[in-house]
Amino acid sequence: MSIVETIRKKRDGRVLSERELRDFVTGYTDGSIPDYQAAALLMAVYFRGLDGAELGVLTDAMLHSGDVVDLSDLPGFKVDKHSTGGVGDKISLHLAPAVAACGVTVPMISGRGLGHTGGTLDKLESIPGFSVDLGIDRFREILRDAGLCLIGQTARLAPADKKLYALRDVTGTVESIPLIAASIMSKKLAEGIDGLCLDVKVGSGAFMKTPERALELAETLVGIGRRAGKRVSALITDMDQPLGRYIGNAVEVHESLEVLSGRGEPDLVELTLALGAEMLLLGGVARTPEEGREKIGRSLKDGSAMQRFRRCVELQGGELPTGTRGWFADDTDRLQGPGPGFVQHIDAEAVGLAALRLGAGRVRKEDPVDHGAFVWLKKKVGERVELGDDLAWFSAPSSATRNRDVVTAEVRAQLAAAYTLGPIAPPPRPLVLHTLRDA
Amino acid sequence: MSIVETIRKKRDGRVLSERELRDFVTGYTDGSIPDYQAAALLMAVYFRGLDGAELGVLTDAMLHSGDVVDLSDLPGFKVDKHSTGGVGDKISLHLAPAVAACGVTVPMISGRGLGHTGGTLDKLESIPGFSVDLGIDRFREILRDAGLCLIGQTARLAPADKKLYALRDVTGTVESIPLIAASIMSKKLAEGIDGLCLDVKVGSGAFMKTPERALELAETLVGIGRRAGKRVSALITDMDQPLGRYIGNAVEVHESLEVLSGRGEPDLVELTLALGAEMLLLGGVARTPEEGREKIGRSLKDGSAMQRFRRCVELQGGELPTGTRGWFADDTDRLQGPGPGFVQHIDAEAVGLAALRLGAGRVRKEDPVDHGAFVWLKKKVGERVELGDDLAWFSAPSSATRNRDVVTAEVRAQLAAAYTLGPIAPPPRPLVLHTLRDA
Repeated sequence: MSIVETIRKKRDGRVLSERELRDFVTGYTDGSIPDYQAAALLMAVYFRGLDGAELGVLTDAMLHSGDVVDLSDLPGFKVDKHSTGGVGDKISLHLAPAVAACGVTVPMISGRGLGHTGGTLDKLESIPGFSVDLGIDRFREILRDAGLCLIGQTARLAPADKKLYALRDVTGTVESIPLIAASIMSKKLAEGIDGLCLDVKVGSGAFMKTPERALELAETLVGIGRRAGKRVSALITDMDQPLGRYIGNAVEVHESLEVLSGRGEPDLVELTLALGAEMLLLGGVARTPEEGREKIGRSLKDGSAMQRFRRCVELQGGELPTGTRGWFADDTDRLQGPGPGFVQHIDAEAVGLAALRLGAGRVRKEDPVDHGAFVWLKKKVGERVELGDDLAWFSAPSSATRNRDVVTAEVRAQLAAAYTLGPIAPPPRPLVLHTLRDA
Repeated sequence: MSIVETIRKKRDGRVLSERELRDFVTGYTDGSIPDYQAAALLMAVYFRGLDGAELGVLTDAMLHSGDVVDLSDLPGFKVDKHSTGGVGDKISLHLAPAVAACGVTVPMISGRGLGHTGGTLDKLESIPGFSVDLGIDRFREILRDAGLCLIGQTARLAPADKKLYALRDVTGTVESIPLIAASIMSKKLAEGIDGLCLDVKVGSGAFMKTPERALELAETLVGIGRRAGKRVSALITDMDQPLGRYIGNAVEVHESLEVLSGRGEPDLVELTLALGAEMLLLGGVARTPEEGREKIGRSLKDGSAMQRFRRCVELQGGELPTGTRGWFADDTDRLQGPGPGFVQHIDAEAVGLAALRLGAGRVRKEDPVDHGAFVWLKKKVGERVELGDDLAWFSAPSSATRNRDVVTAEVRAQLAAAYTLGPIAPPPRPLVLHTLRDA
């Protein structure tokens, strides 16, 4: 069967066979199928979708396009978390050690990704000396010792996904739920996990803008995972304002350390408890969500999660700074609000774009990230703003001193536009909108 | 506006601006837009279509991607015919001289094309010495002298279409009515014509399998032509059995010469009268279709059409053979029918594929065509077949003597399967199913 026939078949809405899907992934990965034919097929998939069986095969072919990590020699259940990405989402940094402290191993392999702020890897790299480029053998050793390890994807993990993602990015085929789902799951299933908890974000700062799309993605992800014989659950969580108060790289590590110290912002703690509880359920060390929340909460209060994190940082070559000074920029600009009033909404995407403008994220893969750049939300949704109160602080990029004034003015305008104030406090919104869990 | 934005816009069903369409055609032609982005956009167009304004701009951008022939210095109306391609369609060969004999200039630039049998160019090249590769200056001279000239597309005519067509061919995006229409019209409008008659084939042997699709294509083609300020009409004609009795290259010239001699098969003559009448209407030398038919018919009977054809062949360097011997293969195989009965149907596509197998057509652009290979339908739809009667004769390719037996057996089976016989004569089918004509 030629690739042109495969394209036509999907274009006409027919179901592709296992052979056709595997031949496509193999051929595209080894270069025998050119970009233009892959692009045409991806666009046909955008319009026609893939059914559960097709998705299972596509994901399996993608995950087997490279190395598959085998962690079966490690004791206990291995459970990872994946977030579809939000603004200010530093949850992984403290969630992984908390879950590990409760007895579930967390092998976490992250992509660097593009976007408003750096990914988990960029945040971790703001810790001096911290290395995310470890081989799989060292990954296994650290997992055995600390119960968690946070590394970057190697080039040999799901290479088909890397190549397909790069093509989707330039051919208008990113926004396809089956393609998004296959991309995420092929990487995650290549990690050698037994279970996976998905945090599917919905709202202005998320990739999925509506609850319906988020639910569709969540169901698709869970379906692929179950077909692959894994325990999978998914939370659909609100991303209509940034998570926590800090958006940047080093600042987000700082905010995670606050959670690990038993403090931290209520929304961050709440999401940590919710996701952690699911991971403990998946890992079999909690029988109910309530028991899971309780265990995670205790690990944050009693220092056991912090201990795990410190051990992981140490094993990965990092050294945590003792204070905040010199770690993240302290030369800040301030945005005053038009108070008095209550914050009704903070446009997460706009805040993310402001952080990007400050240098916290990257536009192209090869761009560097400024670990010190940040936005600090002094006011969050529901909080009262008096006349003269600051809404946010931010730090213009040290690397762009030439046009610092321009950047400062732009970011100030972006942040001002991100805030909506009103005369009365808005009703509280739930953070976890929906849970998909195995019966 | 980046090409990725253009792709996403069309993907989401929005209307592209003139600028976006022109930038796409320019960028793809000059290579600054890569194949994979063009492929994604073509597939998005396949699903979302193009409206009349978009199609007009796309076609105009494609036709202006190269040279545009200017024939305004030639006297009178210049009218061409284009057929969407059928099996046994040799109409152009005798229609062009008949229309020229009636006083309308016919500048005909044809593609070589792929398919069951060669295109008009391949048929013409079976005339010894006939050259279809003339420059535009010589084209103009011959038009002025003979009233018709039949040449091949130069590389400088609508290069955007050549590049786009090659890409569509390998990305499953051929079967898109707007893309088909823009491709046809960009080439035809680059010829410097004033009017165009379209012969849109429908049926098993045609690209459009249903009358609805054929009508949609015809309306789209006519719409583009009118938007470009040309007089355009279209006939939708039956291609449920091959046209005439001969399918091949030299044999089809032979059959055209029969029509030019005032004889010829009824279906061939009928279609020639119908198309010719439209062309005379477009060219303003007939006031009614009946008057047009009458004039075309007379040109075939009185030798004036033949005279034009001979003059054209002479000016293009060809020499018509005096007999059939030595011109097309006379070493034939025969297919006997399972008579008695009446031919109900002849699957035109199957006959075309048999001719292709014999070497009359080409699978790849660089393949040679065997001018002598042919299928001769001894029985057509509605004709009585007695026990022992031959249904068809065919000639295995001289170039494939090594596996001649295999080819012969295959073709015999293909042709046998193409014929459907039944006990009573089927009702006659009209050849022209629909006419789209300017009011």
